[in-house]
Amino acid sequence: MKIIIVGATGTIGKVVSAELKKRHEIVIVGSKSGDVQVDINSKASIEKLFETVGNFDALVSTTGSAFFGPFSELTEERMYEGIRSKLMGQVNLVLEGRKYIKPNGSFTLTSGILAEEPIKMGAALSMVNGAINSFVIGSSVELENQVRINAVSPGVVEDSRDFYGPYFPGHIPVPMEKVVAAYVKSIEGAINGQIIKVY
Amino acid sequence: MKIIIVGATGTIGKVVSAELKKRHEIVIVGSKSGDVQVDINSKASIEKLFETVGNFDALVSTTGSAFFGPFSELTEERMYEGIRSKLMGQVNLVLEGRKYIKPNGSFTLTSGILAEEPIKMGAALSMVNGAINSFVIGSSVELENQVRINAVSPGVVEDSRDFYGPYFPGHIPVPMEKVVAAYVKSIEGAINGQIIKVY
Repeated sequence: MKIIIVGATGTIGKVVSAELKKRHEIVIVGSKSGDVQVDINSKASIEKLFETVGNFDALVSTTGSAFFGPFSELTEERMYEGIRSKLMGQVNLVLEGRKYIKPNGSFTLTSGILAEEPIKMGAALSMVNGAINSFVIGSSVELENQVRINAVSPGVVEDSRDFYGPYFPGHIPVPMEKVVAAYVKSIEGAINGQIIKVY
Repeated sequence: MKIIIVGATGTIGKVVSAELKKRHEIVIVGSKSGDVQVDINSKASIEKLFETVGNFDALVSTTGSAFFGPFSELTEERMYEGIRSKLMGQVNLVLEGRKYIKPNGSFTLTSGILAEEPIKMGAALSMVNGAINSFVIGSSVELENQVRINAVSPGVVEDSRDFYGPYFPGHIPVPMEKVVAAYVKSIEGAINGQIIKVY
């Protein structure tokens, strides 16, 4: 398969890329490095990405960010940071990518545990993650040509426990192999409209 | 209690208002009618709403819309219609309202069944409903002064079955009393960070 990995240079993306590279043709997409660059916040940039890469079999997105900080400091503008990046960045990858994806292809987006488990400072990320999950559920029944869509929703992964661990008290870090397996399940498996929870 | 009901002139809002009016002081807020008007899409209008109404004990939102139509016709702009209205309209009611809400007060937002059950033409609404649910979960752990937040997530209600029923094949319409009870549970009860599913 020809697989586009957006966010391939991030903590999760690079490990997913390494696994998929073993048996697929990989197009590495980053914000500043990789085979092709994309600004996930820009629909025009996403359109250009697909014009450059052309048809593909699967798209994996492990990209996007959202405001992480005290609820008392949350503002409309800070909510929109996550909406433009992690949420609509990934949604636009689907809305634009559907014009280029081959029959029986798949989209695999990334949400996260905060969609259903709250932590301090996580409200904006919670909102964005819940939106991604429900977009996947909602759009899964209308994709054409047997194209599938799923989301991987990871907890804190072991590789970033030093950085994120303190913000997730009592959360047991997830082995990266389990996270990678979730992406493989979505891409190489047959499920559709699923939130694959890795926690 | 002094309760602000935003969307009080809608299908659900008017019945919720009638129930709460029996034992509370109600401020009816609509887009064009009611005691006070608000444009839910505008943060400035929401700020003005609270300046006008002042301190309150509970806010109920039954307002906001999102694009409803074929996935093939979904665009970034149509996704943003729901983001600005049903999603950020309600989020802004919380972000601005928290400056005016009294200790032990509550926010009750409205999402909907499409957050977890897909129907044709519902992807934008699914996304918005999932975002509202997870915002409620995420923000519930950081509200100050024992302020609580919950979401009511209704299925198709009996009062709108003639209009919406055909789009929800096999869905059993929910009696309006059950929906009203969910709002009462959130406002007069003690729960926090809950999605009250009425379906």
